Amino acid sequence: MYKGTGASSGIGLGTAVVVEEAELVIRKETVANQEAELERFKGALEQSLRETEALAEDLATRVGEKEAEILQGHVMLLSDPMLTGEIESAIKNEAVNSEYAIETVCNTYADLFDSMGDELMQQRATDMRDIKTRMQKVLLGIQSVDIAALPAGSILVAKDLTPSMTAGINPEHVVGIVTELGGRTSHSAILARALEIPAVVAVNGLMEQVQNGDFVVLDGDAGEVYVNPSQDVKEEYEKKRQVFLQEKKDLEQYIGIPSVTKDGVQVEIVANIGKPEDVDKVLQYDGEGVGLFRTEFLFMDRTAMPTEEEQFEAYKKVAAAMNGKPVIIRTLDIGGDKEIPYMGLEKDENPFLGYRAIRFCLDRKEDIYKPQLRALLRASAFGNIRIMVPLVTCIEEYREAKALVEELKKELDEKGIAYKKDIQVGIMVETAAASLIADIFAKEVDFFSIGTNDLTQYTMSVDRGNKKVSYLYSTFNPAVLRSIRHIIACAREQGIMVGMCGEAASDPVMIPLLLAFGLNEFSMSASAILRTRKMVCSYDTRELQKVAEKAMSFATAGEVEQYMKEFVEKGTV
Amino acid sequence: MYKGTGASSGIGLGTAVVVEEAELVIRKETVANQEAELERFKGALEQSLRETEALAEDLATRVGEKEAEILQGHVMLLSDPMLTGEIESAIKNEAVNSEYAIETVCNTYADLFDSMGDELMQQRATDMRDIKTRMQKVLLGIQSVDIAALPAGSILVAKDLTPSMTAGINPEHVVGIVTELGGRTSHSAILARALEIPAVVAVNGLMEQVQNGDFVVLDGDAGEVYVNPSQDVKEEYEKKRQVFLQEKKDLEQYIGIPSVTKDGVQVEIVANIGKPEDVDKVLQYDGEGVGLFRTEFLFMDRTAMPTEEEQFEAYKKVAAAMNGKPVIIRTLDIGGDKEIPYMGLEKDENPFLGYRAIRFCLDRKEDIYKPQLRALLRASAFGNIRIMVPLVTCIEEYREAKALVEELKKELDEKGIAYKKDIQVGIMVETAAASLIADIFAKEVDFFSIGTNDLTQYTMSVDRGNKKVSYLYSTFNPAVLRSIRHIIACAREQGIMVGMCGEAASDPVMIPLLLAFGLNEFSMSASAILRTRKMVCSYDTRELQKVAEKAMSFATAGEVEQYMKEFVEKGTV
Repeated sequence: MYKGTGASSGIGLGTAVVVEEAELVIRKETVANQEAELERFKGALEQSLRETEALAEDLATRVGEKEAEILQGHVMLLSDPMLTGEIESAIKNEAVNSEYAIETVCNTYADLFDSMGDELMQQRATDMRDIKTRMQKVLLGIQSVDIAALPAGSILVAKDLTPSMTAGINPEHVVGIVTELGGRTSHSAILARALEIPAVVAVNGLMEQVQNGDFVVLDGDAGEVYVNPSQDVKEEYEKKRQVFLQEKKDLEQYIGIPSVTKDGVQVEIVANIGKPEDVDKVLQYDGEGVGLFRTEFLFMDRTAMPTEEEQFEAYKKVAAAMNGKPVIIRTLDIGGDKEIPYMGLEKDENPFLGYRAIRFCLDRKEDIYKPQLRALLRASAFGNIRIMVPLVTCIEEYREAKALVEELKKELDEKGIAYKKDIQVGIMVETAAASLIADIFAKEVDFFSIGTNDLTQYTMSVDRGNKKVSYLYSTFNPAVLRSIRHIIACAREQGIMVGMCGEAASDPVMIPLLLAFGLNEFSMSASAILRTRKMVCSYDTRELQKVAEKAMSFATAGEVEQYMKEFVEKGTV
Repeated sequence: MYKGTGASSGIGLGTAVVVEEAELVIRKETVANQEAELERFKGALEQSLRETEALAEDLATRVGEKEAEILQGHVMLLSDPMLTGEIESAIKNEAVNSEYAIETVCNTYADLFDSMGDELMQQRATDMRDIKTRMQKVLLGIQSVDIAALPAGSILVAKDLTPSMTAGINPEHVVGIVTELGGRTSHSAILARALEIPAVVAVNGLMEQVQNGDFVVLDGDAGEVYVNPSQDVKEEYEKKRQVFLQEKKDLEQYIGIPSVTKDGVQVEIVANIGKPEDVDKVLQYDGEGVGLFRTEFLFMDRTAMPTEEEQFEAYKKVAAAMNGKPVIIRTLDIGGDKEIPYMGLEKDENPFLGYRAIRFCLDRKEDIYKPQLRALLRASAFGNIRIMVPLVTCIEEYREAKALVEELKKELDEKGIAYKKDIQVGIMVETAAASLIADIFAKEVDFFSIGTNDLTQYTMSVDRGNKKVSYLYSTFNPAVLRSIRHIIACAREQGIMVGMCGEAASDPVMIPLLLAFGLNEFSMSASAILRTRKMVCSYDTRELQKVAEKAMSFATAGEVEQYMKEFVEKGTV
């Protein structure tokens, strides 16, 4: 058995098809006629662009707009005059062949992206290498593996799947994906989840262990891979596969059912989304609303600020699609961990404790915050939009944001532009400060949403992205749980809605505790909604009080988690 | 009136002596005989070294060991084979004159240090430019201004004071210092405080406003400077000066007095120190112990780990000097904001939320933590040492540190080495997590010390060194105050000692609140001890309860601080 990272749920059994990219050998050659070589490069560039556009279109039709974006990103890279300009200068000034010019220029950028360290930038590096290879193949006349033609029952095995490769996957034929590289947020993982193909990534040494035709079994939850396993293992996993599929089917009976506990406590199970297109999945899984719509996508990966109009269209699209169900939209939550040149955001020494989110927005009212708030207000005429302010630490910040909303309402009134008059303005509760004075906030704000990821980070003083200390990051830590319980109690005391949009909200081991604390709204990725509803329907909150009381009596995160795990498995204490 | 930063308390009136370093003009010249030029450089280096050593010795005798360290640092820089080696290569390989070689090599380092951004590194840059100038002056035969020869009643005015310049200051003759550059932690500021000369630094445009012989008045607390003021102003400040000196003298009556409130509540007023030599000042100002001895100095500015023996000597020195009074020594509190090559500490993405303090120490038990704990135990045979663990977020960390202490005690028992059998082991409470579960900690640890600087940073999710967000950093924020009140209550409930070693402990506006909350121990810079004792003796904690209750009813830091300021000024509400 080989261990990797589970990247897409489900069990896959099938025949390995090992996809190995031919190793391209790029030699430096001197060209006699630079002009002719330039023309050769331009031809290859054109063809690469056409091919990528076609792939993107195919993917958009077959899978979805969101999935096609990766390839649309490649189209943008291939159209970037800076990149192509540098390649052209190399050909012109150094009289080198196109393949070599592409190699050096693209590698320089890829290495630069790699050196920046975070996962997003590493993805950029992968993209850059992907388009490099595509152009070089066109120049060298090498055909790519045709993944669209794989036979039924194939398990795709590769070092790493480039977006161009995954684009061709037919989910009818490919029953599993295993890669040696990648992570849960790599493009291949995202695509596998979108296509609902079980996948395991980051399997060390995979390529030396698997050959074409091997029988492969994989568990996309446990992150396990078997190569030519015994008949017993095969049968065990075939059973698991059936159970998985049956459970998935069973969950469908929770579509259209209210999220009510046995003793009649009703909660809302809603979705976290990152782009307007994600609404399709929310509706498919019967989400009762959107608990967190991150607006960062509008500001990332571009060279200029999005206009108010662009923002309005995006917010309106979600509000309208959700058709009256609540849509909580978080205002811009960005800071010095991402360098966005057009915004003038510089890298902070401690970005998580720095100039970001509401701090940044209140400092940039005219060019950033007002246009966003105005777009939100205008869009609120088309659905049940609620505005959520992130990273609040003191009441003054909320008051200032709220005053801006009131000012803009007046402005819209004067112009006769429609908006939801009673639009709610709430806050993310995700700092120790906001938790400590949650009673003060509860008297003024319209709702809370607990951001457990940041709340845990800030409470434990731990950057969970830092591998050397991430062992301390646990929402089960008694300090964090007390903070959550306190925030919920303050909200209930004042009768305002209190939701949660961090990962804890969909953690099966955490849900009984949150129900006991009195959480009103659980926000999560759409695919977790039905599973969570099933859990909610199975509990009696009166019994959960006893469980919570016991859980809160432990001194360490380990004891709490262990106790809750046992409770969830046995259904009793 | 010109506004700067108050850097050393007191009022100064006197005649300006403007110290302008002659602007050295360094030209690049080609030398015919590199060997001869090398000899010329070596001669100048020798002489610079001798001069600096003499200055350092003089300063050590006249002012103190600590103050001489700056110049000893220069001696080390001048002896650094890497630096001198680079200068020598420049002379040898490029056949340039020594002045020019020094100029380019030293500037490269100075610029590098400058670019690192923090104040410590900027100080290094200043040091580098200082020794550069010294060597060049020797080479060019230029005499430095002789500050030691200034007449009585002089106010020293300069763009910036280099350590070499300040070293010669005679506090009998120099009654004030004003500089255009620098900050509260620059060498000149530190030296001014050590010599108790009133000083204002960072006065923009100063050098264009003052000429030799001008009459200058300065207020080292308010950071104000007057040049040739009216007779009224002169008289006003002369009066202020008398009041300041009288108050200083009056405070001396609090030496030897217990720190007891009107209603008989006794607290301890102790000192924060950074080096063994600081103990002199603690005794001078009648500190009742050491509330925080930072051990980082042992590990910084060197190329290899300090030995257990070196550490033992340092801890023993403080313990013995304090002669039975409590000495709380904090174990190594270092992390990824300082790159210490020999420790293998790398820069974290968010150093304040990263691999540091107890996290780092528990990961490096054998080579770092055990030698430090062993040195502490051995030194505890010579005084009342208590061990304090920083940045604790969960009880497991404390238990692990405590278990190490127990293991080492056994080891010492076996070897027959003496130590304080009942040595106390406590924690810094400085994270939101530790505060939230302070009741759990209070049952196991021997004492608390609240680190308000970090507690405020972590509670407010604010890096106070980040100018764009430091406006949010306030210990008066109701969230932070509630946290402090809660920590103190948990300690009192369990009957353990609770102290405070952050800046809030000596803030006159904060002290009445802390007394009301029930804080046992106030730790601060030695010079603030008598002023604090005077305050403590003036209050009745029963009356302060009402003040605290009112203060805690406000929703914003601004309101709390305003209310407390008014109370402290009027002495009543």
